[in-house]
Parts: sequence; structure tokens; C-alpha cells
Amino acid sequence: MSFILTFLGKGGTGCTTAAIAAAKALSGQGQRVLLLGHEAELGLGLLLDETGLTTQPREITPKLSVAILSASMLLEQSWDQVKQLETQYLRTPFFKNVFGQELGVLPGLDSALGLYSLKNFDSSGLYDVIIYDGYHSAATLRMFGMPEVLSWYLRRFRQVFAESDLGKAVAPFLQPVAATVLNNADWTSGNFSQPFSMADGELGEGQRAIADPRRVAAYLITTEDPLAIKTAEYLWGSAQQANLTVGGVLVNQSAVLGSVEAHFTPLPVHSLPARTEEGWQSLTQHLPNFQQDALKAPKPMTVDVAQRQVKLFLPGFTKSQVQLTQYGPELTIAAGDQRRNLFLPQELKGQKVTGAKFQDGYLIISF
Amino acid sequence: MSFILTFLGKGGTGCTTAAIAAAKALSGQGQRVLLLGHEAELGLGLLLDETGLTTQPREITPKLSVAILSASMLLEQSWDQVKQLETQYLRTPFFKNVFGQELGVLPGLDSALGLYSLKNFDSSGLYDVIIYDGYHSAATLRMFGMPEVLSWYLRRFRQVFAESDLGKAVAPFLQPVAATVLNNADWTSGNFSQPFSMADGELGEGQRAIADPRRVAAYLITTEDPLAIKTAEYLWGSAQQANLTVGGVLVNQSAVLGSVEAHFTPLPVHSLPARTEEGWQSLTQHLPNFQQDALKAPKPMTVDVAQRQVKLFLPGFTKSQVQLTQYGPELTIAAGDQRRNLFLPQELKGQKVTGAKFQDGYLIISF
Repeated sequence: MSFILTFLGKGGTGCTTAAIAAAKALSGQGQRVLLLGHEAELGLGLLLDETGLTTQPREITPKLSVAILSASMLLEQSWDQVKQLETQYLRTPFFKNVFGQELGVLPGLDSALGLYSLKNFDSSGLYDVIIYDGYHSAATLRMFGMPEVLSWYLRRFRQVFAESDLGKAVAPFLQPVAATVLNNADWTSGNFSQPFSMADGELGEGQRAIADPRRVAAYLITTEDPLAIKTAEYLWGSAQQANLTVGGVLVNQSAVLGSVEAHFTPLPVHSLPARTEEGWQSLTQHLPNFQQDALKAPKPMTVDVAQRQVKLFLPGFTKSQVQLTQYGPELTIAAGDQRRNLFLPQELKGQKVTGAKFQDGYLIISF
Repeated sequence: MSFILTFLGKGGTGCTTAAIAAAKALSGQGQRVLLLGHEAELGLGLLLDETGLTTQPREITPKLSVAILSASMLLEQSWDQVKQLETQYLRTPFFKNVFGQELGVLPGLDSALGLYSLKNFDSSGLYDVIIYDGYHSAATLRMFGMPEVLSWYLRRFRQVFAESDLGKAVAPFLQPVAATVLNNADWTSGNFSQPFSMADGELGEGQRAIADPRRVAAYLITTEDPLAIKTAEYLWGSAQQANLTVGGVLVNQSAVLGSVEAHFTPLPVHSLPARTEEGWQSLTQHLPNFQQDALKAPKPMTVDVAQRQVKLFLPGFTKSQVQLTQYGPELTIAAGDQRRNLFLPQELKGQKVTGAKFQDGYLIISF
């Protein structure tokens, strides 16, 4: 189990630089660090002066390893695993004649494969800290939001299918098919329980990890440029929608924090000096304690069952940018081009919302 | 039918600035222009000083409209269309109780919905030029590569399924199911022809449009920063893998082109001055003729049937970064974290590759 750290900010404000500095600082303190970048993001290799980085981690200084995620390479590797999984459930697998080297990368696969790699590196036990240098902050948030959104889709559509006329009509046909071609899976209950519950478990585990600031946290990066500040604010709010804790703010190449600090209360704001000719030390010695800051940061969601209240931390948004809707048992928050279906405790689940107000960056929902 | 233009470059080098300048210049020349951004990319609204931009285009100056793509908003809108489409094929649709407002955005949906919007704006006939300001160049290339990759998946897996034991075993069961619950679709031939051939048609149309420099083209943006130049070079090569024509290069905030030009032969390289207090005019008057440049640019792929040769333009890559594989009838090129399955004319299809060499940025394959 590792501590996973990522940096969010407008393009060109120094996310990759901060990621490298953090990796150098933490490995210098004796932690085993993996710095994970993307093939399309060339900065990592160039700034580290390393060529030929691959999906296989390479130790470049003591305790500091670097790898880059290449979606096409990862797809090739995962395809073998898909085929193996298939043979577990199908007596006559049909993907056997499709080769990993043929598969093109569709949008979204980058994120899915990236998250899958993160999970594997995390559970390898080889790293105390994994620093993820995403190729774009919006994509990073989509990636971390994926387990929650996907598990919702899975539960919701499984139920829809089971309750539908189509599901009922197909069920009697699926049973003989299952008996003919399927090996272990229990399709007879109509909910295809085995493969799905495996996915459920993995997704639930992912959701818990991302929501836990001891395991995953982000730090914002900005410069003094108003557009960079505005973007960091937007990403701060959007991170809450992905259930990702934001520990603080780094202001790149600026010693004047006053104008920036006001935008990010109550987060700690630190200044990051420019990189000098001598190397990274001027940066590494100015870095905060990321793990400590993350533990002190506001939680994305707090539930008070006694008060029948849910508080969502949504900084950086105005009331008009946040939309709350309730359809049947589903309570949905839309903000920052993300939509989140709230998982409520049994006591509040399916209860009607009686009020909602926006206060000090919190959306407070009463039942 | 519109001319679709996009800018590719490292984050923070001025893609959005160039997109706005191009939109202002072309609308000033009397063309009807739509400038399309992303919700997560706040630069567009802030640089234009416009608030509350939505997916619905707003005319901000004569002939210049602006809209932003919000994946969650588009998902909501498209969901109604999915439900309508479903009722065409299923007598008892089962998505009817799932509401657009509930659906979370998964990675990849942004790109799919963005491309779908582009297609609709393109076919609306309302715009001579659409300028697409993607939120990240790698994501833009994934998006434009999507019709080609998706159509390959569709053809390949349809064939795999039809030829598989599972496909053969399921076929007799599908027929009565089809008779029970399906309305129009012809499932009896075993290739589910109707819904699939509709998708085939749309994807084929998309592929042709993207490959046609009269309809879609990109322009590179860089500064004098070596990392920005390197990124632009990489994107140049990657664009070829998505079959997207790159017309030229803009060097942002620099009048010295010498050091940059050498990297991008034979493309024209233009200098873009900094934006002044007076507004955008200093920029707009320095812009090249994007449409003309695109027509003169090297084609991503040229086939010479008589010589039994295929030439792929892959600038910015070295030989070791390009991988060619042949499995059965499939010929695959991997480069720039993209993989492309070549569509060959009948004469060369399925023929064995006898040689391949890398020359002046071209991969030349002989059969």
C-alpha cells in the first residue's frame, strides 16, 4: 500500500516540475518513490534527462524509480489478462485470435489503463509513495472519479436490465446458453453474480482508497496568473466531486502569496521558487509535508445522520454552478462537468430532500 | 459542411489564444465561425471576457459564435436520443426509467460526446469554420482518431463473434429472442446488420472527413522553449497516426523562427506576436491562411499500387519509436502511443510485407 500523490493545475504552470521535485524530496528522505508519467507528456523524460522510459519502472537515483504509462503498451499487456479471464468463464474463448498488438487506443482507455496500473503498483508493496503526473488535470480527475461512476453504472443498469421486459424475456434463453458454453459463472439467479461481484469488489476497494487521504491526495499548482488561479480553484471543487482530497496549494515561481491565499482558504499555500542551474535542491527544500496537509484538509463529504444532514465541500463553485436533482432513490450533484450520485447511509437512503443551501463553499442538504 | 480547425501544442503555450485569434480573424473576413471550447478549460471564457457560456452557441460579435462542451450537459441531451433510438429497435425499451441527470461522466465520454457535437455543428450548415479548442492535445488526437479505431473494433469483433463457437452456439437462441423482443433489426443473418451498418456508415463518413484537409486540419503551436518544440514535434507525428493533416506551425511570442523552423520542414512556420493591451488585432493580422496551408501539407498516407508501396508520413519519430506488425490480414503501425490498422486497397490487402524502411520522416512499406 502506497501514498498516491498527484498535482492539479492549468497546463504549463509546473505540475510535472512539482511532481519531480516531490519525488526527489521524498526519496531523499528515504521513502521508496515511484514517479509515474504519461508517454504523451514528454516533460518528465526531458526534465529528468532520461530517455527510453517505459511502463517498467527504472531506478534513476536511490529509492526513486520512474515509469511512463503508454496506453498502447498497457493495452497489449492487459489483453493477455483479458484472454486469461475469458478462458475462466467461457469454455471456448473467442478473443484468442485477436492480438494485443492490433488493438487501437480509444479515448477513455488511457484513464482506465492508468488507474489499473496505479492499482497494481500500489498493491505491489514496492513503493511507499507513488507520484502520478497526469497528462491533464481534468483527465486525472475523470480517472480518479471512475470507480465511483462505474460502480454506479454497474448497479443501476444491472437492476434496470433485471427488471426490464427484455431481461425477463432473455433470462430463460440465457440459462441453456449458460449451461452450454459457460463454465463456473452462476447466471441462473439472473444477476450474473460472479463476474459482476468481482468487479463490484474491485470498484468498491478503489472508491475507498481514493476517498482516504492517507492513501490518495492531490495538491494544487498555480502561478500568479489570474487564469491559472481560476483554473486551480475550479479543479479544487472538481476534485471534491471525484472524492479526492486536496491538501494544499503550491504557487510556482512566486514569493508573493497574499493575492493567491485568499482564493484557497482554509488550505495551506506554499511558494515554490524557480529551478536554478544548480538543480532541484532549491525546490525540494521548499516543499510542504503533503501527507500531513492532506489529513488536515476538509473532507469532500460529511454525513450527520442525527441532524439528517449531508455536507458536501464544493469550493470554487457558485450556487448557480451546482445542480442538485432527485429521481426516485437517486440523489445527484452536478458541478464542474462532473456528476456524482451520492451514496447515503441506510437511514437517509431514498429519503426526500427537504432543503439545500450553499454556505462557505459547502452544499448542505437536509432530509 | 464546415472547415474544422484545431491547434495542437504543449499546455500553456497558447492554443486557446491562437484559437481565439483565428476565430476573430476569420469572422472578420466574413466567414461564419463557431469557436468550440470545453467547460474544464476556463481560458476561453476568461480571455473573451464572456461568462455563462453553454453548449448552445452564442454570437458574441458579428459572425462569431462561441459554445463550450460540457460532457455532463451533453450526456443529458444525448440520453434522450439514445432512448429514442432504443425504442426503434426494442419493442419494450429498458432505459426508460434511467434519467440523463443521473448519468456520471466516465473517461472517454468527453471525447465521444465532443466528436458527436462537432459532427452536428458541422452538418447544421450554420458555420463556414469551426475552431475546436480541445482541453489537451493528446485528447484531441484520441478524439479525431476515434472513428478509425472504433470502426476497426466493430469490424474485427463482429467477425470474431460470428466465427466463434460462442457466436455459433448463441445464434439459434438469439433468433427466437429477436422474434420476441426486437422490432425491425435483421438478426437472422447472424451479423446484426441493421444497427451495425448504420454505425459503419457514420464512422466511415467521419473517417473520410477527418482525412480530408479541406474539411479538417490542425496547426501546431510552440514557443522557443525546447520542451514545447519537442512536444509540438511529437504531436505532429501523432496527428498523422490519427489521419489528421497538420498545415503549419505558429511560434507564440517570438519573432526568431530560425531555431524552430529546422524541426518542422517542410511546414510553413509563422511567428505570432504577444497580445497587446489594445486587443487582438496585433495577433489576427499575423495569422496564416490555414486552409491553404493544410492543402499543401504532406498527406498522412500515400498508396502506390503499381510500385506495391505504402508511404506513411511519421515526422518527429525515430525508427526505434515506430513499430510495424503483421498478424494475418492486419497490418498495424504503433507510434506516439497510438496504434493504427492500415486500410489497404484490395490489391495489397492481406499481402505479406517484404520490407520497411524509415526515410526523411516517412515509413515506406513494400509488399
